[in-house]
This record gives sequence, C-alpha cells and structure tokens, in this order.
Amino acid sequence: MARTITKDTQLCMSLAGRPGNFGTRFHNFLYEELDLDFIYKAFTTDDLRAAIGGVRALGIRGCAVSMPFKEACIAWVDELDPSAAVIQSVNTVVNTAGWLRAYNTDYLAVASLLKVHQVPPDALFALRGSGGMAKAVAAALRDAGFRQGVILARNQAAGEALAHSCGFRWQAELGPLRPDVLINATPLGMAGGEEAQALAFPPEVVASADTVFDVVALPAETPLIRLAREQGQRVITGAEVIALQAAEQFVLYTGVRPSAEQVRRAAAFAATG
Amino acid sequence: MARTITKDTQLCMSLAGRPGNFGTRFHNFLYEELDLDFIYKAFTTDDLRAAIGGVRALGIRGCAVSMPFKEACIAWVDELDPSAAVIQSVNTVVNTAGWLRAYNTDYLAVASLLKVHQVPPDALFALRGSGGMAKAVAAALRDAGFRQGVILARNQAAGEALAHSCGFRWQAELGPLRPDVLINATPLGMAGGEEAQALAFPPEVVASADTVFDVVALPAETPLIRLAREQGQRVITGAEVIALQAAEQFVLYTGVRPSAEQVRRAAAFAATG
Repeated sequence: MARTITKDTQLCMSLAGRPGNFGTRFHNFLYEELDLDFIYKAFTTDDLRAAIGGVRALGIRGCAVSMPFKEACIAWVDELDPSAAVIQSVNTVVNTAGWLRAYNTDYLAVASLLKVHQVPPDALFALRGSGGMAKAVAAALRDAGFRQGVILARNQAAGEALAHSCGFRWQAELGPLRPDVLINATPLGMAGGEEAQALAFPPEVVASADTVFDVVALPAETPLIRLAREQGQRVITGAEVIALQAAEQFVLYTGVRPSAEQVRRAAAFAATG
Repeated sequence: MARTITKDTQLCMSLAGRPGNFGTRFHNFLYEELDLDFIYKAFTTDDLRAAIGGVRALGIRGCAVSMPFKEACIAWVDELDPSAAVIQSVNTVVNTAGWLRAYNTDYLAVASLLKVHQVPPDALFALRGSGGMAKAVAAALRDAGFRQGVILARNQAAGEALAHSCGFRWQAELGPLRPDVLINATPLGMAGGEEAQALAFPPEVVASADTVFDVVALPAETPLIRLAREQGQRVITGAEVIALQAAEQFVLYTGVRPSAEQVRRAAAFAATG
C-alpha cells in the first residue's frame, strides 16, 4: 500500500494551461521508490498571481511552471536563479520558508545533454523556434561555447531578439544553409498538434546533418527523430529533456538525487500515463 | 496499492494554526473506501488571505478551517451558508468553479446529535465556553428549541455577547444552579492541554444532571465523560462531533454520503493517527 498522507507530508505541484500527467506520475513514482514523504499533483489556474501566492502561503514545497506561465510568473517570485535569469523564463519554483526562488531546469537539462552526447561546440547549428524552450536551448548552446548558428523563427521580432541575446543570427528560413546540428524547439511533430506529421527540417537538410535534437517529448519518436535514426545520426530526444529537467526539479524539491536508472524507470512510468 | 494521483485528482485540505492528522486520515480513508479520485492534506499558514486565494486560484475543492482562522476567513470567502452565518464562524469552505461558499459543519453536527440523542429541549442547560465551538453549540441549542440555559464563560464580553445572540443568560460561574444538561465547549479535559485532568463541571453538579455533552475529542473519554458514564447518564462525546462534522464536510466536497458504518470506521482509523 502507498504511503499514508499526514500533516507532515509535503506537497509539490505544477501549474500549466493544459496540465498533463507526466510530472505527477514521474515525481510520485520517485517519492515511493525513494520512500520520501511527498505527494505531487498538477493544477491549472486562471489567476497566476493568486496561485503563486497560494504556493507561498500554504508552504507548497515546489511548483513546476509550464506554458503559458513561464514568463508571467517572474513577477510573483522573490528571486531568479541564473538558470532562469539568463533566459527570463521559469519552469520551476522552490519554496523555502515562504521565499520563492525560480529556476529553469529545461536550460539545465539541455546544457547537460549537449555535454553527455558530446555535441562539438564548433559545429554549425540551426535552432527552430523562439518560445520558452527555444530560449533555454539557445542559452545552453551559447554557454556550451557554440558560436555559429541560426535561429529559425517565423516570428521575426521574437527570433531576432533571441538571436541577438545569444550572439547568433536570425533567419526566417534556412535557405541553402546545411547545418551540422539541427534542433527543433517548436511543436512540429507533437502528437495531437496540427502538424503531428510535419518534419521540422526538410529531408535533404536532415540528410546532410550529423546531429538531430528534437525537444518534442510526446511522442519522443517524432517524424524528425525517426528520419535521423534511419540515417544513423546522433539523436537527442525530447524524452531525454523532459526526464532530465524533471529529475533536476526533483533534486531541488527534495534534496535527494535519484540514480540514472531510477530516473529512467520514473520517466518510462510517467510516459505511459 | 492506493490510487495513482493524476491531473484530474481533486485536492481537499485543511487550514489550522496547529494542524492535526484527523481530517487527513478521515477523508483519505473514505476516498479509498468509496473509490473517489480525491486526496486530502492538512496545511497551516501565516497569510490566511493568500492561502484562501490559493484555494480559489488552484481549484482546491474544499478546505476545512480550524482555530485561529474560523472568524478571520469570513472576509475572504464569497458567501456564507446559514450554518456559518448564524454564528459568524466558518469551519468549511467549498470551492465551486472559483466561488467560495463557507459552512459550519460543527453547527450541523451538534444540531444532529441533539436530535439523535433525543435531548429534550425543555431541559435547563449550562454551556461552558464562548469560543467558536461554543457559538456553534449555542446556536444549535436555540434552533432546536432550547429556551432555558446559561452560558458560563470567564470572558464576560464574549459570554454576554453569545448569550444575548441566542436569547440565553450569561453567568461567570454556575452558582447554586443544577442544570439537567451540561455541555463543555472549552479545552478542559483535552489531552496535552494545561487542564487535561480538569472537570468542566464539579462532581456534585454532574451528579444531578441527566445529560453530559463534551466537545473535546482528544481524548473522547475526558474526565467529565468518564464521570457521567459511571453515573449512567446520557453522554455525547467530542468523538461524535468530530466524526459527524467531518462526514458533513465529506458530503459537501464529494457529493457522496458515506454510510454511518463507514463514518464510524473512518473516524476510528483517523483517531489512531
């Protein structure tokens, strides 16, 4: 039988416009696995300020923040960790005795994956997207030493702002460029989206790359990732990002670092929910 | 294995200056027993307004309110049910799509117990106390048709105000009066309190009564209740009040009424925590 909730059980939670089950299943799996007196539950809100105020007033230990709250919540926390300050985007709030410190574990996860997969920083990259996740990826690339790359975004203002902030170039489309590293940070290829079957980059561009990184996690095997696998390229999936960023949240909330194997099992359990 | 928490699981909670485990154990026991997708957890706060705002903004379905928040929370809810309005004291907040309606299930429980135990309303009663629970008891007595009784309270202002509001008399002490019905709504006899061994009424007063009602729930067998049992009197305990008021909260939160047997088992489970 699962743990009995008591007055001393700590609550962690998430805030999202459209809550999913990944975080709830991931964290609760590890609480049980590691015998920690925590529970986790997803919420949505139509009053972000009051919701964050509730996190503080109720002593809720941690709060994941998803679209569309990642920028807006900055106004209601007490302090930004460098991981959030560098991109002015928050995905994690940690409550220590009423003091709210905000992090971005997407940034931390992407930085870690670039290292683990040994993506060479002298490569030319193309990053599609200009939203919160694209900001996390661009800053991680810059901080890993990448200097040559383009931000591809239909939204010129957002794309130029992001490119400028990281020392990269903006282009509306790729044109004749054939980058070594292709990164998708848009919903292209996401299940249930309008463009679930869309490739974030054309096949001939994928063919000439050596690394393909897709942040889409549901499904992890997007059309882009499947194509890159068929061609034997280095592949980094959104499943790795979501598991690693959730694991970093877990460490921030509990102070306990799960093993890589525990993270893998928690992510596998969470992905089936 | 217990239910897996998902994004659709509803949270109910409590706010108390010093949270206990009764509510958490009582409600979670019945959620499991009745297979309802709810979880319950106790909280405290040092910012009641933000805590209630968080209940609303996070869509937390229900919130029990205990000392010292029962009066203060009135300012932050949207509507008082008559059970709370009649005594201007709240112990339950129900959140329906962001609209907070406040109830007092202590009042409902006491009113029900007076009926179930068939306490005759033409009896002379003495009620010791002038706090939130004393207000619930006094209003329930009045509304059950009791007309002759005294409020015993050291705090003259609070005692007189309560007596006046219900059409009863206030006295600092009992004097020569020998009431039929004795009711304790103070912490006298409560475990861990300064006066755990104290009798709320002197033995000779208990001896001439026919009904003894003690709202102290921990322990339910207070010195006063033990003495009344020895004398074969009609006895109503705080254990009955706490179980019944929690059951009424449960109905308000879930829309499901547990059986008397289920309430009995939930209360027994909760009392061991």
